[in-house]
Amino acid sequence: MLRDQIAAEFKNLQDTICQALETEDGSGKFREDLWEHHSGGGGRTRLIQDGSVIEKGGVNFSAVEGPVHPRLRAQMNLPEHEAPLFFATGVSIVMHPKNPKVPIIHMNVRYFELDNGTCWFGGGIDLTPHYVVREDATYFHRQLKQVCDAHHPAFYEKFKNWADDYFFVQHRDETRGIGGIFFDYLKPDAPDHGLSKSALFNFVLATGQAFAPLYTHFMAAHKNEPHTPEEKNWQYLRRGRYVEFNLVWDRGTKFGLETGGRTESILMSLPPQANWAYDNRPEPGTPEAETLSLLKKGINWL
Amino acid sequence: MLRDQIAAEFKNLQDTICQALETEDGSGKFREDLWEHHSGGGGRTRLIQDGSVIEKGGVNFSAVEGPVHPRLRAQMNLPEHEAPLFFATGVSIVMHPKNPKVPIIHMNVRYFELDNGTCWFGGGIDLTPHYVVREDATYFHRQLKQVCDAHHPAFYEKFKNWADDYFFVQHRDETRGIGGIFFDYLKPDAPDHGLSKSALFNFVLATGQAFAPLYTHFMAAHKNEPHTPEEKNWQYLRRGRYVEFNLVWDRGTKFGLETGGRTESILMSLPPQANWAYDNRPEPGTPEAETLSLLKKGINWL
Repeated sequence: MLRDQIAAEFKNLQDTICQALETEDGSGKFREDLWEHHSGGGGRTRLIQDGSVIEKGGVNFSAVEGPVHPRLRAQMNLPEHEAPLFFATGVSIVMHPKNPKVPIIHMNVRYFELDNGTCWFGGGIDLTPHYVVREDATYFHRQLKQVCDAHHPAFYEKFKNWADDYFFVQHRDETRGIGGIFFDYLKPDAPDHGLSKSALFNFVLATGQAFAPLYTHFMAAHKNEPHTPEEKNWQYLRRGRYVEFNLVWDRGTKFGLETGGRTESILMSLPPQANWAYDNRPEPGTPEAETLSLLKKGINWL
Repeated sequence: MLRDQIAAEFKNLQDTICQALETEDGSGKFREDLWEHHSGGGGRTRLIQDGSVIEKGGVNFSAVEGPVHPRLRAQMNLPEHEAPLFFATGVSIVMHPKNPKVPIIHMNVRYFELDNGTCWFGGGIDLTPHYVVREDATYFHRQLKQVCDAHHPAFYEKFKNWADDYFFVQHRDETRGIGGIFFDYLKPDAPDHGLSKSALFNFVLATGQAFAPLYTHFMAAHKNEPHTPEEKNWQYLRRGRYVEFNLVWDRGTKFGLETGGRTESILMSLPPQANWAYDNRPEPGTPEAETLSLLKKGINWL
């Protein structure tokens, strides 16, 4: 697997996903922005706004390269005198629907390599319902388990727990949603999984390909459900938590903003509108309180 | 100056400010929450929502103590075997007005001491107009210069530049607003200013006391100005930037959230509603574009 092949497959993935989302949305169309990264390479940002189902969402492809940023070098414990070049490519998605009964979703697949020969894959999908529907959560996790199981028997459990830990809003003691899978630093032929580079790529691509059928399923299932102004307001408050996670805890967002990434592409993950109310606590027994009670690590949704 | 005297004066300051804001608002009333900090002490959070002028704002007093958090110990270069206790007290304010012609404001005064004898003051005031009005900016900076000059001839210039550097949204290459003053680590009898502890406290208290006359001046001046839905929308977008600064760059917010501070008090600074639009760029020649052109470091507003 050459890096250009991987980037080309990711680019195709972006196309397929945008087409599937436009079809299910019915009226929203993606606009495209091409951009260049300050150290080399660039990206193809696609944004959809004011669709029938999607209020605001982005499907980003990028393939950038350059000298490894000092901040990353420190994280990777690279010695001072080593100044390698990196190449990184990936697809990154967040969708904020209009209807509070449709969940927010996030997907990312990425590949990273250094010119010293090291390379790895990362990525994941996680779902953030404004109102948790148990059957949906089970469906979501079952599909993800199927994708994982087709590539490695240990992946689902490991990556499900990793998602619980990663998508966690520490200062609220809440998970961002009902989790999903998250993985990083998957290196070819590593002893804990033994998969070759192309086998790992197949898994990562399958993760990306799972996105469109999964999300269009939830769009179709809930887009016509009636909802009240109070439910819309709850959606705005939950989006506030989404903003808090992305800006305070998400390592990718922070890294991008601190190292001169393209701000508008990185912050495509933010909702069109978010609200904050002081010390808002839903009444016990309400669907809102039920949702909060399910935003915990370690729930087995299968 | 004993720490309890300082805390008592800060508490009075909170009272005075809340009264002045309620009077100028005309209908909004503060609600009060008392809380305890996990390691000792606590706070008195006051929140105003849905007033005539103020849409959402908070005036926080706190006086907390306990072992110094490892993260702060590292920042202060304290040796591993030293595990001092700290005491911190302060007043912290953010106001989000309804009318986009009224600016957002932030004020903070704080005192910090360790049981090894070290102590310092910090704080500042800065203004974030949704629409920059040059005369207002000049008025604001003149008043702050007066406060500074009454205590030390070098303070205004130094702390004005510090505010420009601190209240800076790096990933947008914009200042948060038109700045103000910012200072930290002001230690009694330090060679660069030579002020005693009580002289420093007088300066810090004067900074706090400048807040109410300044902000009620802007409230009164602009609260009845007409505004369009487009101007309100611009306000929501500017609030989005405020959220970005507070959650990505503000050291106090990050430190509080990462070390188990009271989340609802820390995040009182967030607006009731904020919006994000992809790659929003105002037309050249509009008041919005004019405002953006003035969100730069190093402008002399006097």
